[in-house]
Amino acid sequence: MAPVTRVDLNADLGEGFGAWRLGDDEAMLDVVTSANLACGFHAGDPATLRRTCQAAAMRGIRIGAQVGYRDLAGFGRRFIDICPDDLYADVVYQIGALDALARTVGSSVTYVKPHGALYNTIIHHEAQADAVARAVRDLNGDFPVLTLPHGAFGDRARELGLRVVTEAFADRAYRDDGTLVPRSEPGAVLRDPAEVAARIPALSRTAESICVHGDSPGAVTIAQAVRSALAANDIELAPFV
Amino acid sequence: MAPVTRVDLNADLGEGFGAWRLGDDEAMLDVVTSANLACGFHAGDPATLRRTCQAAAMRGIRIGAQVGYRDLAGFGRRFIDICPDDLYADVVYQIGALDALARTVGSSVTYVKPHGALYNTIIHHEAQADAVARAVRDLNGDFPVLTLPHGAFGDRARELGLRVVTEAFADRAYRDDGTLVPRSEPGAVLRDPAEVAARIPALSRTAESICVHGDSPGAVTIAQAVRSALAANDIELAPFV
Amino acid sequence: MAPVTRVDLNADLGEGFGAWRLGDDEAMLDVVTSANLACGFHAGDPATLRRTCQAAAMRGIRIGAQVGYRDLAGFGRRFIDICPDDLYADVVYQIGALDALARTVGSSVTYVKPHGALYNTIIHHEAQADAVARAVRDLNGDFPVLTLPHGAFGDRARELGLRVVTEAFADRAYRDDGTLVPRSEPGAVLRDPAEVAARIPALSRTAESICVHGDSPGAVTIAQAVRSALAANDIELAPFV
Amino acid sequence: MAPVTRVDLNADLGEGFGAWRLGDDEAMLDVVTSANLACGFHAGDPATLRRTCQAAAMRGIRIGAQVGYRDLAGFGRRFIDICPDDLYADVVYQIGALDALARTVGSSVTYVKPHGALYNTIIHHEAQADAVARAVRDLNGDFPVLTLPHGAFGDRARELGLRVVTEAFADRAYRDDGTLVPRSEPGAVLRDPAEVAARIPALSRTAESICVHGDSPGAVTIAQAVRSALAANDIELAPFV
Repeated sequence: MAPVTRVDLNADLGEGFGAWRLGDDEAMLDVVTSANLACGFHAGDPATLRRTCQAAAMRGIRIGAQVGYRDLAGFGRRFIDICPDDLYADVVYQIGALDALARTVGSSVTYVKPHGALYNTIIHHEAQADAVARAVRDLNGDFPVLTLPHGAFGDRARELGLRVVTEAFADRAYRDDGTLVPRSEPGAVLRDPAEVAARIPALSRTAESICVHGDSPGAVTIAQAVRSALAANDIELAPFV
Repeated sequence: MAPVTRVDLNADLGEGFGAWRLGDDEAMLDVVTSANLACGFHAGDPATLRRTCQAAAMRGIRIGAQVGYRDLAGFGRRFIDICPDDLYADVVYQIGALDALARTVGSSVTYVKPHGALYNTIIHHEAQADAVARAVRDLNGDFPVLTLPHGAFGDRARELGLRVVTEAFADRAYRDDGTLVPRSEPGAVLRDPAEVAARIPALSRTAESICVHGDSPGAVTIAQAVRSALAANDIELAPFV
Repeated sequence: MAPVTRVDLNADLGEGFGAWRLGDDEAMLDVVTSANLACGFHAGDPATLRRTCQAAAMRGIRIGAQVGYRDLAGFGRRFIDICPDDLYADVVYQIGALDALARTVGSSVTYVKPHGALYNTIIHHEAQADAVARAVRDLNGDFPVLTLPHGAFGDRARELGLRVVTEAFADRAYRDDGTLVPRSEPGAVLRDPAEVAARIPALSRTAESICVHGDSPGAVTIAQAVRSALAANDIELAPFV
Repeated sequence: MAPVTRVDLNADLGEGFGAWRLGDDEAMLDVVTSANLACGFHAGDPATLRRTCQAAAMRGIRIGAQVGYRDLAGFGRRFIDICPDDLYADVVYQIGALDALARTVGSSVTYVKPHGALYNTIIHHEAQADAVARAVRDLNGDFPVLTLPHGAFGDRARELGLRVVTEAFADRAYRDDGTLVPRSEPGAVLRDPAEVAARIPALSRTAESICVHGDSPGAVTIAQAVRSALAANDIELAPFV
């Protein structure tokens, strides 16, 4: 079997809120092939989101909905024990809101990636995984979802007929079981571009998309290092299909 | 010229938030022909909105997006001096969010009615009127908007090619210039069903839709009195077209 | 050893938010001896809280701070995996805010009772229990805290030198281990006044204060039934000391 | 009459929220003599505020409550037509919350300065000016308030017996009537340290405190330029009394 020769590069963008900015969305949009935009619940006021949609649309970068827990104060990074019916509705609401903003700039949402604590929770929390997967399916069964190669969310999404795009994190440490080291633990986020770049060939064999973070210090430098590492290893950079 | 013989009846619904309920949506949906649902910025958490969408859809009642200022603490009843770009994006966001919820129950948003202080403001505030009208037009130029017969918002919406549905309030006192007496003034809201019913024939000649409130004490009784008054005066009750 | 002959009666009040009301605070204040007021994070806008402070002060009812998770949409009933430093600051913020409102009507906060999911969580979650206990101690070491007779929060509060007032719930079902049946399970809340009243003598022997809920249907009727049951059993109703 | 020979230097700090940072609070605290901290309604989550209180307390810098409209999305920079009773309660709530946080680090709130749109509004809006002044007076009649030399808020505060500390803005353009050019207009904020420094001697004669902004690009540089200009002109830098 031939080695994987193409990979997508995605980043979390649109994560400011009102007067607060986070990361350099314009610079990141020049590096990635897929843009996961916040949807207002953990970050992203509508005007910021629309500007980021516009910047993505101008570059032909497609837009994904990065749905999260309703938790501006915690940036969506704290688990919330929300009941499935409420989570289902929260996810639908967020995707619809971002899609509407994208449509006013001639684009649209084309995939979904959960954010932060929700992302990590639904790797193992079956009721919440089911709620998110059903929300995506009911809104648009053609939306792919991004998640780790293994876990409850991917399993449930596949059962519901959704396309699952597997993802690896360029700058996050992994546990032996393939889950991410939580941000609260030391060493969870790698900050050395060379160290990150060295992981890229192996990571590209494990997943269809590689996530680079837009909000860490040196985010753009790391993203460019990942892109260079792909080129240096003859791995084609292309949006997932 | 023949008298107006048909009129629409609309009410503001879906105005709870989480544990808080407001009004009896189910009972009101048995009376009205158009349901204006909150969109989460002044009221309406996603799960509540979806349930109300479902109750409307089951009865074949169409759903309008009642967009408002981002102000849960003020229930959207306080003017906010928001800049047009932010207001534009807030309106798009809200409509898209509600529409997505409606789609998961087999319905969709089919018209837009601003709420509370936003409704009153854009009767005269041209920059905000323009922002709301452009937001609706850019999202879906086929969406009618509900507003008073005269005012900046209706004017601007017509200029942008939107259909304007004129509206009268069954239980709100009017000033001589045709604007509403603000809620902060005494006598702004009529509470006697007989008094409200007596106004209906005249109101029906001035507007295409009559608004009854879902959240006042005795709201359902008043709405039923309006409906009886329409029947007693041979005015057909039908959704606006 | 003589039987317990006096007990305090507390209720959760001030739980509206803006246009939304919850329960009949005035009627409940005529029944209880201690008023736990929301502090704005799960419910309670400042103007509502001040009015409830005033109604309590007029009746000589003392005011406790009912601190909760920052979660208006979930009414503080969903566990949030907030880190201890953030929780500590959130608790201090809420107590200070309510105390300031109480001071403008000639009263003040005199005790603390966690709300909803926070209440239940810190029965067993040691890090969050410690954060809440330290927040109370650092702000005012003379504030008693209300909690279940057994659990991490009471233990930690005692270690820090705080007075712990034990509490029983008039209308909530208990598990065998003395914890509450979660609201998400059937039978968690008792709604029959007679059934509630029958439990009162036994409950009064297990705790220094009995909590009646202000927001359930029939809340005032149940609270009055509890009060009558106390009188019928010669149990003195008096604020805890 | 001898020229003014001493002036206070104040800045707005604690204006991050959760994951979002704004300005370099630590650096600014090394320059100013009074720190106006946000109170959570326009910015400032409790944990951020407590850290800033601690950084101020360690340097012996006193803490003022920068109260604002409840508007995280607008950073308190949009006028809200809030009724006086609600505004009064919002102001009390915010001051009490910040004061409690300050007390846990051995400090306390010692003055009040309204923020953003509220600051500008109450220069002329008498009902809101009265609400803010009464809130401060009712909470602590010894708290000085910072405001422009002329305007409704200062007048009302003086009538209520509050000490009014007059303030000038180092980097904001003024209109001929002494009010600030709104941020929405070009040239509202001066960004050249030399230009700002040149204004300082004259500004020091018009007010008891000079405000430098902590959130503009180059904020620390400008604040240091102001401080140098004071030294170069033999104007003593000292907290207002």
